[in-house]
Amino acid sequence: MKKFINKSDDLLSESLQGFAKAHADIVQLNLDPHYVRRTEATTKPKVALISGGGSGHEPLHTGFVGKGMLDAACPGQIFTSPTPDQMMAAVAVENGSGVLFIVKNYAGDVMNFEMAAEMIDCDSATVLIDDDVALPKDHSTGRRGVAGTLIVEKILGAAAENGMGLSACKILGDKVNSLTASMGVALHCCTVPALGKPTFELEDNKIEMGVGIHGERGHDTIDLVSASDIVEQIMTVLCDDLKPSANQKILLHVNGLGATPLMELHLIYNLAATFLENKQLIVSRSLVGNYTTSLDMTGCSITVTLLDDEMIELWDAPVNTANLRWGC
Amino acid sequence: MKKFINKSDDLLSESLQGFAKAHADIVQLNLDPHYVRRTEATTKPKVALISGGGSGHEPLHTGFVGKGMLDAACPGQIFTSPTPDQMMAAVAVENGSGVLFIVKNYAGDVMNFEMAAEMIDCDSATVLIDDDVALPKDHSTGRRGVAGTLIVEKILGAAAENGMGLSACKILGDKVNSLTASMGVALHCCTVPALGKPTFELEDNKIEMGVGIHGERGHDTIDLVSASDIVEQIMTVLCDDLKPSANQKILLHVNGLGATPLMELHLIYNLAATFLENKQLIVSRSLVGNYTTSLDMTGCSITVTLLDDEMIELWDAPVNTANLRWGC
Repeated sequence: MKKFINKSDDLLSESLQGFAKAHADIVQLNLDPHYVRRTEATTKPKVALISGGGSGHEPLHTGFVGKGMLDAACPGQIFTSPTPDQMMAAVAVENGSGVLFIVKNYAGDVMNFEMAAEMIDCDSATVLIDDDVALPKDHSTGRRGVAGTLIVEKILGAAAENGMGLSACKILGDKVNSLTASMGVALHCCTVPALGKPTFELEDNKIEMGVGIHGERGHDTIDLVSASDIVEQIMTVLCDDLKPSANQKILLHVNGLGATPLMELHLIYNLAATFLENKQLIVSRSLVGNYTTSLDMTGCSITVTLLDDEMIELWDAPVNTANLRWGC
Repeated sequence: MKKFINKSDDLLSESLQGFAKAHADIVQLNLDPHYVRRTEATTKPKVALISGGGSGHEPLHTGFVGKGMLDAACPGQIFTSPTPDQMMAAVAVENGSGVLFIVKNYAGDVMNFEMAAEMIDCDSATVLIDDDVALPKDHSTGRRGVAGTLIVEKILGAAAENGMGLSACKILGDKVNSLTASMGVALHCCTVPALGKPTFELEDNKIEMGVGIHGERGHDTIDLVSASDIVEQIMTVLCDDLKPSANQKILLHVNGLGATPLMELHLIYNLAATFLENKQLIVSRSLVGNYTTSLDMTGCSITVTLLDDEMIELWDAPVNTANLRWGC
């Protein structure tokens, strides 16, 4: 295994220190326990949005802390849930309007955020993200939260900045999640530093459909096919899940899983947008790049969100984070 | 070779169409010949900044077309110079104040931009970028232009937006280039689609120091060492080249070459910033991420620019491109 590290145990801490130093105008790092919060504390009362999860998905979530998005993020060790003490410490960003936790649906994350919610003094609610259509909705632990998380975080971030209250934020977050579907595909798996080798192997002519973001296998290993075929398969599943009506406005997000060139992501985007246009759907907003990664996995995911006017306005609202920034 | 493509001959064209569609508010694509220009034409007279080069380095250069940065970019085939007809067509963005070409120092790029400059009717000047300290300055074809290009493009973009004239822009561009030094390191090489295999092989315990951005070998294959050792080696060479005085303000840019996780780039940044601080230098501005890539190469480069107050003001000025955006 070749990586830019000193000791694999220190990777997270050293990396977070670099992140906070490079973006000191936007974020501050609390070291013990680890959490990242906005440098500029909000003076007006607003719902505090706190997210978190295992590391290795950067920029998610730390890169989305800042004005118009998250108030704090709790990074766990690589592919490992953050601990309740991290979340409880991060609640320091709460300023009287309550906390909304945004949690990807993984057993450890759910349990630890629940424990934290029970132990804090302020009002709280939780939005659970389960956008990954690779798993059926009736899977024993439900569907996983993947790249759609960022979309919920952006839209809720703008709503909270506008002064929306805790219960309305919770309802809106659940709505955006229910209107969002994602699916991923891998060409090569990722290597977790502590393990030192890929978490699964793919032959030279095989790809993995329906991968998550933790180096787990997907639902199917298939022959390598053209980008057009891959996109057709994924988009069909996403549209079967969301069942958009004609002329529905869509947010189309093509996400790199870590090691995929931007050139290829734009090619994937082109095919996915054409697929939607051919179904009389309107690609109204777009996002292409590495946003929810899986270390050095070669692959991508496609996320579709059905938009209404409120969601479009909130998506377009100013945001100033390390890795998502416009209008500021 | 596994990539998200249909035919490798169509990769560039399909990718550019996706790029232009995803960022239609910022860029427009001209298909024959290929060039990308701003969607919103500038109404006020300003020097037109045009760059370009082989593709495979995205977001460089197309991702930096927009307000406050480039007026147009000419993407060649992968790792191949764009042709003079592309540059001549892109000169359509000129509106009476002349054209400044920003050219990375590669023989083909230099020749083709020179041919274009000779054949156009308007005033023009060229800033040649040669920031890569891995090659000595007296190398037969000079030093290469790598990740420092973006820094020249950003600072000149702001200057041109402010109304700086052609000859002053040329002088400023040469100055920024002379105050900028970069060096790269690879853990794994990249695979050019038309070739179908890595352009060089590295054993499991070897890394390549001084790599460029076209999958060429560097100046030395060395044993895999810690991130601290790698950064120490690179930063020593950069500082030996630039010879900053104590209390010099620095722009520190850690650039991913395509397949390196953001976590590792932030760890590299932390080490590089600490190196500079230990030398009584002031890390005044920072940029960390994938900006000048080499397809799916695993590696990174570090760029240091010595800043003065004018350069800091121009660096901070608003920019609104697909892949560099602030203050807009």
